Amino acid sequence: MTDTIAYFTESESVDAVTARVGERTDPRISLVMNALVTHLHAFIKDVELTQAEWALAVEFLTKTGQMCDGNRQEFILLSDVLGVSMLVDAINNRRPAGATENTVLGPFHVDGVPEYEMGTNISKDGGKETCLFQGIVTDLGGKPLEGARIDVWSDNEDGFYDVQQPGIQPHNNNRGVFVTGPDGLYWFEGIKPVSYPIPNDGPVGQLLGNLGRHPYRPAHMHFIVSAPGFETVITHTFVAGDTYLKSDAVFGVKKTLIAEYTQTPDGDTRWQSTFDFIMTPDT
Amino acid sequence: MTDTIAYFTESESVDAVTARVGERTDPRISLVMNALVTHLHAFIKDVELTQAEWALAVEFLTKTGQMCDGNRQEFILLSDVLGVSMLVDAINNRRPAGATENTVLGPFHVDGVPEYEMGTNISKDGGKETCLFQGIVTDLGGKPLEGARIDVWSDNEDGFYDVQQPGIQPHNNNRGVFVTGPDGLYWFEGIKPVSYPIPNDGPVGQLLGNLGRHPYRPAHMHFIVSAPGFETVITHTFVAGDTYLKSDAVFGVKKTLIAEYTQTPDGDTRWQSTFDFIMTPDT
Repeated sequence: MTDTIAYFTESESVDAVTARVGERTDPRISLVMNALVTHLHAFIKDVELTQAEWALAVEFLTKTGQMCDGNRQEFILLSDVLGVSMLVDAINNRRPAGATENTVLGPFHVDGVPEYEMGTNISKDGGKETCLFQGIVTDLGGKPLEGARIDVWSDNEDGFYDVQQPGIQPHNNNRGVFVTGPDGLYWFEGIKPVSYPIPNDGPVGQLLGNLGRHPYRPAHMHFIVSAPGFETVITHTFVAGDTYLKSDAVFGVKKTLIAEYTQTPDGDTRWQSTFDFIMTPDT
Repeated sequence: MTDTIAYFTESESVDAVTARVGERTDPRISLVMNALVTHLHAFIKDVELTQAEWALAVEFLTKTGQMCDGNRQEFILLSDVLGVSMLVDAINNRRPAGATENTVLGPFHVDGVPEYEMGTNISKDGGKETCLFQGIVTDLGGKPLEGARIDVWSDNEDGFYDVQQPGIQPHNNNRGVFVTGPDGLYWFEGIKPVSYPIPNDGPVGQLLGNLGRHPYRPAHMHFIVSAPGFETVITHTFVAGDTYLKSDAVFGVKKTLIAEYTQTPDGDTRWQSTFDFIMTPDT
């Protein structure tokens, strides 16, 4: 090892750190950590980070960790508002043109929700802006997929998920699982979702404030669509025309995921929204 | 705003995030955060971070935050072992050739330590490897500086600082403040410091293990040297010949900070180490 690497210098700071990695280190850990050090040092050099800013960063990260508990994951929020969650999702779920795209899972999915008959209304707290959700699940060639599992959830008309208001909202309010028949069709009733702020009473909310950003997400219905032999689609459909479509706090909106909600004044449901899921074969 | 920026895409992920910063945002916050997002996204794209690795990173950062309390700052340790602390120090304390260089402050400095007469022995727990520390404080031209304040601290012969062992070590063990006279000279007795591991029972220790790195710091004496009209020097002198000189866990060693420790078998002290501090004018 040369002295310039053994002893720290500003110009060779990256080499000083990466040269230290042990020879028997897992190659992937080595690659990821060396890239992290390279980019982290480049960032610090680019902005010539001051010692006061460094201390602020240490304090911010510490508070972010200490805000986390069983119900709150402030580091995921941080990842979300920096576009990191969407980027990792995008890299790991590249799909051919025409296939339904992914977006962030979000923190409010629940396992073990009941499977219902098609047509069931999943809004259990008397939501007034009822909506019929419908569409078809197909492969890339348009062939309907039988046995596709559609796991859906949304907020209620006050902008809260049931798990955010235990004891206030009915259990499994605005959640359900549906399975397609041979025609690949799905339909169920819920409510037209509403926009809501991400939790913004912690360090991440403060960061958004300092950046002049609002904490709102545009209204959306969550879907996980899975079928044997196909890549699982974790996505939302966004309500066309929502105020926050072009400024989602977590960057979840993709153009192909915006769905029309049309009024049906004389039916049982006041709105309807059609969205088809086009699945990519498993690789 | 164009659609490609309003709606997230993998290729324009950075623009999607940076375009969101409010117009009245403090320009420095804007610059730092936009650079952070640029480098963070570049890192993720370079390594094509998997979703499992992302989840591991969230868990690691959360644990790191939750390891912090009044006595333990795990994020500073993380900064240290990634070379970030040294890099920020280097960028903010560039000095002309010949001037004494900085290194990391470390977590064990204490304010309000007593000022002693030159020659005082600061080892209060009967350390056997006693050492005379001596030298001169001058400006860049070699002129002795009167009234220079020298704040020193080291571990004891077991490798612990007094604040790590309250009730075991005497209060202010191996700590002292000395002020130079007109000749700029300083001298005091202490012990020859010993190498020790940084706290490695937390997430950062685990990271070091995964990277095949040891947690040791080479033996060193801490100095803060300040004089009116000059940049304060926060530094260590490292014991020449120490096993860990070329592998300091926190990258603190600079070549100019290595000091000879020579044996003086017939004197009152068994070792002596001479180190001169050459101060840079305040800018």
